[in-house]
Amino acid sequence: MVIVMEKHTAEGNIERVMSELIARGYDVHRSTGSEQTVLGVVGDVAKLDTREFELYDGVQEVVRISEPYKLVGRTFKREKTIVRAHGVEIGGTEVIIMAGPCTIENEQQVFETARRVARAGARVLRGGAYKPRTSPYAFQGMGVEGLKLLRAAADENHMATVSEVMEISQIEGMLPYVDILQVGARNMQNFNLLTALGQARTPVLLKRGMSATIQEWLLAAEYIMNGGNYDVILCERGIRTFETYTRNTLDISAIPVIDKLSHLPIIADPSHAVGRRDKVMPLARAIVAAGADGVLIEVHNDPEKAVCDGPQSLDPDQFARLMDELRIIVPAVGRRL
Amino acid sequence: MVIVMEKHTAEGNIERVMSELIARGYDVHRSTGSEQTVLGVVGDVAKLDTREFELYDGVQEVVRISEPYKLVGRTFKREKTIVRAHGVEIGGTEVIIMAGPCTIENEQQVFETARRVARAGARVLRGGAYKPRTSPYAFQGMGVEGLKLLRAAADENHMATVSEVMEISQIEGMLPYVDILQVGARNMQNFNLLTALGQARTPVLLKRGMSATIQEWLLAAEYIMNGGNYDVILCERGIRTFETYTRNTLDISAIPVIDKLSHLPIIADPSHAVGRRDKVMPLARAIVAAGADGVLIEVHNDPEKAVCDGPQSLDPDQFARLMDELRIIVPAVGRRL
Amino acid sequence: MVIVMEKHTAEGNIERVMSELIARGYDVHRSTGSEQTVLGVVGDVAKLDTREFELYDGVQEVVRISEPYKLVGRTFKREKTIVRAHGVEIGGTEVIIMAGPCTIENEQQVFETARRVARAGARVLRGGAYKPRTSPYAFQGMGVEGLKLLRAAADENHMATVSEVMEISQIEGMLPYVDILQVGARNMQNFNLLTALGQARTPVLLKRGMSATIQEWLLAAEYIMNGGNYDVILCERGIRTFETYTRNTLDISAIPVIDKLSHLPIIADPSHAVGRRDKVMPLARAIVAAGADGVLIEVHNDPEKAVCDGPQSLDPDQFARLMDELRIIVPAVGRRL
Amino acid sequence: MVIVMEKHTAEGNIERVMSELIARGYDVHRSTGSEQTVLGVVGDVAKLDTREFELYDGVQEVVRISEPYKLVGRTFKREKTIVRAHGVEIGGTEVIIMAGPCTIENEQQVFETARRVARAGARVLRGGAYKPRTSPYAFQGMGVEGLKLLRAAADENHMATVSEVMEISQIEGMLPYVDILQVGARNMQNFNLLTALGQARTPVLLKRGMSATIQEWLLAAEYIMNGGNYDVILCERGIRTFETYTRNTLDISAIPVIDKLSHLPIIADPSHAVGRRDKVMPLARAIVAAGADGVLIEVHNDPEKAVCDGPQSLDPDQFARLMDELRIIVPAVGRRL
Repeated sequence: MVIVMEKHTAEGNIERVMSELIARGYDVHRSTGSEQTVLGVVGDVAKLDTREFELYDGVQEVVRISEPYKLVGRTFKREKTIVRAHGVEIGGTEVIIMAGPCTIENEQQVFETARRVARAGARVLRGGAYKPRTSPYAFQGMGVEGLKLLRAAADENHMATVSEVMEISQIEGMLPYVDILQVGARNMQNFNLLTALGQARTPVLLKRGMSATIQEWLLAAEYIMNGGNYDVILCERGIRTFETYTRNTLDISAIPVIDKLSHLPIIADPSHAVGRRDKVMPLARAIVAAGADGVLIEVHNDPEKAVCDGPQSLDPDQFARLMDELRIIVPAVGRRL
Repeated sequence: MVIVMEKHTAEGNIERVMSELIARGYDVHRSTGSEQTVLGVVGDVAKLDTREFELYDGVQEVVRISEPYKLVGRTFKREKTIVRAHGVEIGGTEVIIMAGPCTIENEQQVFETARRVARAGARVLRGGAYKPRTSPYAFQGMGVEGLKLLRAAADENHMATVSEVMEISQIEGMLPYVDILQVGARNMQNFNLLTALGQARTPVLLKRGMSATIQEWLLAAEYIMNGGNYDVILCERGIRTFETYTRNTLDISAIPVIDKLSHLPIIADPSHAVGRRDKVMPLARAIVAAGADGVLIEVHNDPEKAVCDGPQSLDPDQFARLMDELRIIVPAVGRRL
Repeated sequence: MVIVMEKHTAEGNIERVMSELIARGYDVHRSTGSEQTVLGVVGDVAKLDTREFELYDGVQEVVRISEPYKLVGRTFKREKTIVRAHGVEIGGTEVIIMAGPCTIENEQQVFETARRVARAGARVLRGGAYKPRTSPYAFQGMGVEGLKLLRAAADENHMATVSEVMEISQIEGMLPYVDILQVGARNMQNFNLLTALGQARTPVLLKRGMSATIQEWLLAAEYIMNGGNYDVILCERGIRTFETYTRNTLDISAIPVIDKLSHLPIIADPSHAVGRRDKVMPLARAIVAAGADGVLIEVHNDPEKAVCDGPQSLDPDQFARLMDELRIIVPAVGRRL
Repeated sequence: MVIVMEKHTAEGNIERVMSELIARGYDVHRSTGSEQTVLGVVGDVAKLDTREFELYDGVQEVVRISEPYKLVGRTFKREKTIVRAHGVEIGGTEVIIMAGPCTIENEQQVFETARRVARAGARVLRGGAYKPRTSPYAFQGMGVEGLKLLRAAADENHMATVSEVMEISQIEGMLPYVDILQVGARNMQNFNLLTALGQARTPVLLKRGMSATIQEWLLAAEYIMNGGNYDVILCERGIRTFETYTRNTLDISAIPVIDKLSHLPIIADPSHAVGRRDKVMPLARAIVAAGADGVLIEVHNDPEKAVCDGPQSLDPDQFARLMDELRIIVPAVGRRL
């Protein structure tokens, strides 16, 4: 931590700050310039609230210089983490495509969609059984019955499964069916849920909150890892901006940024970011070209009949076409599909 | 709902949309202009996903014209709701000040702060026992022991209490001590928690999510009211913008906007919005001048020693000075303090 | 400037950065910790691009610690600046109300509006003669003929005038009629215009760009002051956020923030921020309660007939009512009206 | 335009709105539902301010349904526009790469950079002679002398040139040297400049303002086209969001969105969006994969010595590697390079 004193501040102000820091057990390095003094603070400053020192007389600015997270950072672990789920490796050289319907509706829908996406090359089957809905008047999901269908359809097609968990009490009931537990954007800072998932021994796919900074997102992953669960996959899904034409603004640069800051796999979800089918394919191509470890994408065997988010779901033919395009792109990023 | 067809689109496209709507039980009014046709859709469109029709050939735009919420709106209830908590009326002519520490730390802190804020005119004592913390390495709160102190200090000073609930499992244990259950910004769309609070018979203070639109915020309140709990207080606390000088940007216009759209009481929290003590007083004055029903404000008997958020807490003398300023302002909005 | 090296980076990396800095004439203070080294850089770093050093091997972060502006800061000048325009003092103890129509339309409109707002207490008459319009198909203003009407109406009522300048070539023609030249939000970073206004000897009212940070806004003011024109008034007018209910989000906290960082007067414009008449009055009260030096507000003698922005203009009766409310509030901030 | 009346509003309110509309020459279609009445307004509503009718008693909402622009829209012109500049076609099947330094510094820099980027496949040489700088203390560009160097280096390598214009008075002097006049983000709504460029007969590259919606951006292009200059290229360069890790957030979805709404070519600039060299290559790949017509990219023969924006400039070797990657990707979007 660095404390910048105001220009020409009184010596007494500088000393007051220094003695307070020393009293708390920190080492202080003082740099006295002709106009301004800067204090370097060494020790475990993670618990300090920088704003506290900003209120001292004579202090111009306090700058935290160390990253507030540990386990998720490249400093903690240089080499990329590979998360293994039901035989699928996320974070390796293969770009992993996770596809399936927004919501599990019935047997025929799940099985037909699963067959089609598996044939095109998807490795993980997605499908929601518990749905976070903005309005209390919307369909809230099939629950465990849905998860059983998801598992059976995935098994038939040699796929892993991913499904969203909304509440601590749902975790245990999901484990027999779900290989990757998804935390939705609205729950990214549901700290009780994150802590509980830290106790689980199942991979977690952590979506970025729609107004979360990259640092907050990494700190949310830190909650899970801090509990002992190191299998975390990060998923960019669009952030909220002033632009209203698209549902959210996919932050494509988060992909290379996360890759630099963290060893965790980073994937992205174009369907929720853009909210419109005709924009999903260009975004999915961009995600792979930017170097992501995977894509999470909504596919429905009959989108016009979908209970939820039909307008942003691809149909199986569009999905197969997209996979062909992605196969052209992957060599440009040194990957395979 | 209104569906705008593209200019000069084929008659077949128009008819396809119309017949689909009629098949679903809606009434359709067709306005044929020289260049463009517009379809008015009448019926319960709350469950329709507008994007679905945007994907039909020949459709330019689909506009939802009715508000997606019901119970929270002024259409449902014209007159302002007054929420009663332990003898305090929020939403009446008195502007209600809720004050106290961010976190309950110990007996002396709570009692001393309570006495001082009560003497200055605060009617509700705030204090956190369960804390949502961005970092897993930060203090997480005293739990029920803290709530007992909060209750005792409030009783001694004839105040009501407000404290944050983070998890469904905490609700029951909080009810003996807490008059108003606060839902934090990060949990505004924790739909399971909102649904559970709809079953409670205790007032709920619902903070706006840091990137929530006013409509989403009202829909979150609708979740609670839909469960039968009509005592909801809305609390603006700053939204996330590109400006980094302040922690968040207090959306002061949300106060008159909510007052027009909804009958629910609207208060605001300047402490979390701005994050710095020296900006809290100007914002608190602005909140009252804009017509809010109350202010939620952090006060600590000794801010420099506070475990959490000390830099944004007022000390008791500053709080008393603020109350004097607010007493000057309230007649300008036809209120009293 | 502070350069934070990565943990356990090689000594060679540290030395490379140090020798480059020394070669450029800076003094470097080195703090070596057990895990990490921090370099303090002293000298005129205003011209350095911090990102340049971030790309050196072994560098974790580069933090600029001095403010990039000089003349606008409180460090340069402690006491508040009072801008004098045609006998009106902005930045003194009187809160200055600037009122009038969005656009000058005709003689009767300007004179009638001027008489009404002057009678209610406004000191400066506003009115646009050159209009920035988002669409090329909208009315673009009356030009110099409009300014003559503005001047005459102001003189009759002993008021100063403020009007927007859009182009360098307009400046000279405006000077006989306009006491304060307004720079609109869209031109806040029109650096050629700012430089030209720095040569003028007429006060400038500089609106904040709709996505400008406070720092960029102050740097824009620095452009004007750097040219020798020290009479700059800053005007907050709402920033762009994801919230769509209001046109912009008035950043009310900018008022106390600017007051801390800069000696320049700070006023705010509620009309453009919110875009709806029924929200203008609450916001104007909030602006004064937050401590602003003035309010810039749209008033039209007959808003329903206004050529432009009628929906956000108050009528003269509403304006008089607002002034009565503001008179109640000003003592709370130690001001008069 | 559609006007939605409040539920159960009085018949008088409906009639007042209708007669006002008819008095202004519009056709009104009335749809009376059991609860609510909706009015469809037909005629040239481009000049109407929708907010005006929102203030009438009994009006719930006014929705503008036609796009406010004409010439830029796909409705006006179905087939894609190809802009021709000095023999280069932007908007055709070839993806056009525009590369070169941020600022023209000297002969050796421009010529060496030009040779290297031309050899790697760039078709347009970029370079700034007039620079918009946030701070008045930064280098402001070489002016016409710089443009002469740009032209000579481009001619030697059979390239077209693009350079930024900041002021109307610069246009004429630039025409002998510049094939594409660039309008920077800060000038996107400098309407006087746009109008002047509408009179020119030289292609214009219009960058998106950093907080401009897609609609405002298209309206800015409309200003230029409305003057008779139909050769406009749109350039996405990142928008301002709360995320601070990157300089701006590249709105990758703007590429397919613009392609749907407008016939104008759409390119993107990864260098300014992200501001850091190590993120430029992933973003450039993403831009091409998303279907853009071109990429505008900063390359400097010796980035560490660059006067401006060195940290975001690629060196010639990195640029050549990027071109190889892009050549792999283009078949996925049915293009060539």
